[in-house]
Amino acid sequence: MVYATRRETFSAAHRLYNPKFTDEENARIFGKCSNPNWHGHNYTLEVVVAGEIDPETGYVLDLKELKGIIIEYVIKHVDHKNLNTETEFMKGLIPTAENITIAIWNQLVNKIPKGKLFSVKIFETENNYFEYKGE
Amino acid sequence: MVYATRRETFSAAHRLYNPKFTDEENARIFGKCSNPNWHGHNYTLEVVVAGEIDPETGYVLDLKELKGIIIEYVIKHVDHKNLNTETEFMKGLIPTAENITIAIWNQLVNKIPKGKLFSVKIFETENNYFEYKGE
Amino acid sequence: MVYATRRETFSAAHRLYNPKFTDEENARIFGKCSNPNWHGHNYTLEVVVAGEIDPETGYVLDLKELKGIIIEYVIKHVDHKNLNTETEFMKGLIPTAENITIAIWNQLVNKIPKGKLFSVKIFETENNYFEYKGE
Amino acid sequence: MVYATRRETFSAAHRLYNPKFTDEENARIFGKCSNPNWHGHNYTLEVVVAGEIDPETGYVLDLKELKGIIIEYVIKHVDHKNLNTETEFMKGLIPTAENITIAIWNQLVNKIPKGKLFSVKIFETENNYFEYKGE
Amino acid sequence: MVYATRRETFSAAHRLYNPKFTDEENARIFGKCSNPNWHGHNYTLEVVVAGEIDPETGYVLDLKELKGIIIEYVIKHVDHKNLNTETEFMKGLIPTAENITIAIWNQLVNKIPKGKLFSVKIFETENNYFEYKGE
Amino acid sequence: MVYATRRETFSAAHRLYNPKFTDEENARIFGKCSNPNWHGHNYTLEVVVAGEIDPETGYVLDLKELKGIIIEYVIKHVDHKNLNTETEFMKGLIPTAENITIAIWNQLVNKIPKGKLFSVKIFETENNYFEYKGE
Repeated sequence: MVYATRRETFSAAHRLYNPKFTDEENARIFGKCSNPNWHGHNYTLEVVVAGEIDPETGYVLDLKELKGIIIEYVIKHVDHKNLNTETEFMKGLIPTAENITIAIWNQLVNKIPKGKLFSVKIFETENNYFEYKGE
Repeated sequence: MVYATRRETFSAAHRLYNPKFTDEENARIFGKCSNPNWHGHNYTLEVVVAGEIDPETGYVLDLKELKGIIIEYVIKHVDHKNLNTETEFMKGLIPTAENITIAIWNQLVNKIPKGKLFSVKIFETENNYFEYKGE
Repeated sequence: MVYATRRETFSAAHRLYNPKFTDEENARIFGKCSNPNWHGHNYTLEVVVAGEIDPETGYVLDLKELKGIIIEYVIKHVDHKNLNTETEFMKGLIPTAENITIAIWNQLVNKIPKGKLFSVKIFETENNYFEYKGE
Repeated sequence: MVYATRRETFSAAHRLYNPKFTDEENARIFGKCSNPNWHGHNYTLEVVVAGEIDPETGYVLDLKELKGIIIEYVIKHVDHKNLNTETEFMKGLIPTAENITIAIWNQLVNKIPKGKLFSVKIFETENNYFEYKGE
Repeated sequence: MVYATRRETFSAAHRLYNPKFTDEENARIFGKCSNPNWHGHNYTLEVVVAGEIDPETGYVLDLKELKGIIIEYVIKHVDHKNLNTETEFMKGLIPTAENITIAIWNQLVNKIPKGKLFSVKIFETENNYFEYKGE
Repeated sequence: MVYATRRETFSAAHRLYNPKFTDEENARIFGKCSNPNWHGHNYTLEVVVAGEIDPETGYVLDLKELKGIIIEYVIKHVDHKNLNTETEFMKGLIPTAENITIAIWNQLVNKIPKGKLFSVKIFETENNYFEYKGE
């Protein structure tokens, strides 16, 4: 079992906002992250696939193929987008990095051609990152 | 003459948009960077001050003091803000990294307590960065 | 279950020294790391908390709150300190990165407001790092 | 149980090529990675050893000793080498990063003086990395 | 005048070898870098263009356009290639990073659509990098 | 003219302290950096040599030779040392990164075998770095 990781990046706008809360509550709970005029980040995404090595190729899976899948099902939907209003797969979710991580897992889990999706990591800043393993 | 550099980071939303252009022209010239629903970045800022070493302190200037100045005159105005609509010192400018770099220079050039402002650098993504030296 | 990581840094002095050993033994076992005049490092600390996402906030826990806890219970006690003589929670321990990692775990394990402490990592240099998971 | 990691780097040439395949098949499956005139990488290797802390030293194991073992059994055989033709422990293997990771595990697993080999990671580019844990 | 930098990466094989020297001289002068079976690197390239900001766009030049030029005139000729035998613009040159840096400058200097080429940097390893400014 | 850079690292202890000042003044001016029990850093050093390429070798100078010179005249004197009390070439200087940068310049300026020393940079933390060019 080898764990193969592909890294991609995207840049997006968001705000943390729960429509159940008043504006004052949103401001108190989320602070500057709730700015109604938006802010944004350069996100780094790491997708880890676990599997056996195919002896014909020496690959768990072709990472160029994995890259294409990540672009099709994730990057196209988030890069240079507003995560609150434009990303279909984030609809109804507060776009915290935690929720983004799980939503990306859900986008990818049935699309992996060989091996199994093992982990999705999102680095939101150089000081904050998040991982989800489907558990 | 020693060049002393202080690094800070901020996260902001923006879009590239020139009000003189039609929406079609903005979309053609700026591509996905002109998305009307915004996107954003983690920006890294490097401020370089050139000066003689003060023999009493061994410092060109106290970088803790420089940090305070950068926060007061730059970071407070851009971090978790919308650079198109909320940052006073960017008013009337297309918020490209190039223009942000010069605008930050203008914010800081008269605030340096010792030595002289030598350079301002903005890293917009891991692949794109910009420097201005007041020339 | 999402794993949320907060990164902080600190700079400290230390020497590797076991009082049970003679000076010659300390020098032989620890080499230049046992220099009696001290040396130091920029340490990077990563604290990982595992938990369920709170649907009200989209957070495992508020990382700003976690940051405050790390500063209060760890950073204040180690940053710009001598780990052998000044850090109460390292008393009686040889300040290897391994022991620092466990001592920081012990400082934090009962202070996590939501979720559970999952891992503490210390990067001592760009080539050496250490992780403890409470096992 | 603490996980102690040592990082080393090496630079090598390789090509992805399965002698069972025709040249056309190799080109189709491996693309530019199959260039018969070779290409190469700066590889980063991380070796993780898991073990109890020795109370006499505060170490899981002496990382200087681990470094020596990695150099002797791995780096000398791969640094500034051709992984297809010169590295004995890669003979008969397609030199994908996946296969390199397992081959390095096999080189090291019986050489660890204290604790147990827990993981071997190879970073082939800034976007692709691989881990093997002996499972 | 703003300095705009675009970063790209490529992976290539090479050996340091001067055909005027005997094999023994090549081995003595270049050491392991002269291995006749090749080795390789992940190279990082930074291209700096200096120019005035166009007030219509806020750009010195469109970095997407610069990226396309770098790919066309540089990356296509070096990525997953053998720099000694396959790269036309390195013909007759010992493929040291110094010579690569100047050769890339010569490839690009007349292709910059706005502003002027100011600097080309090549990072060969994490410890060695090189810059050429056309002087 | 090519600028060739070699990067090295070292770890050292220091405190900022001017013997002309009272303890209170040292504490006020230098803050936690003046802790009498020391603290320390992982320093990164970059040495830049400017010169013409030797057509016989393709080198400005052999960076392995430069590495040896940096180790002999700098690293041996600072790595795992106390910069206030043990480093001969820092005697009489407050060991700020500014003064370290100039002192390293002075150690190296007459030792460069080909080309000329162009710049010495010291990174003291990820947020603070310093450069000296002999001007």
